[in-house]
Amino acid sequence: MAIARLSQSEIETALADLSGWALREDGLAILKAFRFADFSEAFAFMSRVALEAEKTDHHPEWFNVYNRVDVTLTTHDAGGISARDLAMAAAMERFAR
Amino acid sequence: MAIARLSQSEIETALADLSGWALREDGLAILKAFRFADFSEAFAFMSRVALEAEKTDHHPEWFNVYNRVDVTLTTHDAGGISARDLAMAAAMERFAR
Repeated sequence: MAIARLSQSEIETALADLSGWALREDGLAILKAFRFADFSEAFAFMSRVALEAEKTDHHPEWFNVYNRVDVTLTTHDAGGISARDLAMAAAMERFAR
Repeated sequence: MAIARLSQSEIETALADLSGWALREDGLAILKAFRFADFSEAFAFMSRVALEAEKTDHHPEWFNVYNRVDVTLTTHDAGGISARDLAMAAAMERFAR
């Protein structure tokens, strides 16, 4: 089953409901830089995201150093941003609270 | 207590004992690109590294996407590579086996 790539306006509407997410310059991914109190909190967040990623078979690209987690979400099978990226972004917001 | 920065020859000797680690172009960090079977294996590795990082209070910089974990180790307090980076690299080798 093909995964639908969202339109620019669909993405912009969705991003307005999320806090701190931005469209990557090429328009093919969404990004957020998460900051936590320390490494322990950052990795606790990453662990919850990892479980969600396996459950939904949708994995982030992410960079971590100490309390910082820079996340990139894109859907390779859609050649851009799909509903799966928005669902993962929403899950990350819950986990980061 | 200041953490000693290792000399170029100390680093080169140590890297010869490790597999797949390289010196970053600026000479201030060591790097390795780990590859695993899938995300589950990659994150299992990252989880063990996270525990070691907390225990030793020495944290990696790392990028993960699916089965790939790109690691950078440096010691900010030493302004370069210290024995702590080599100890972490050796621990990562054990965890990745």
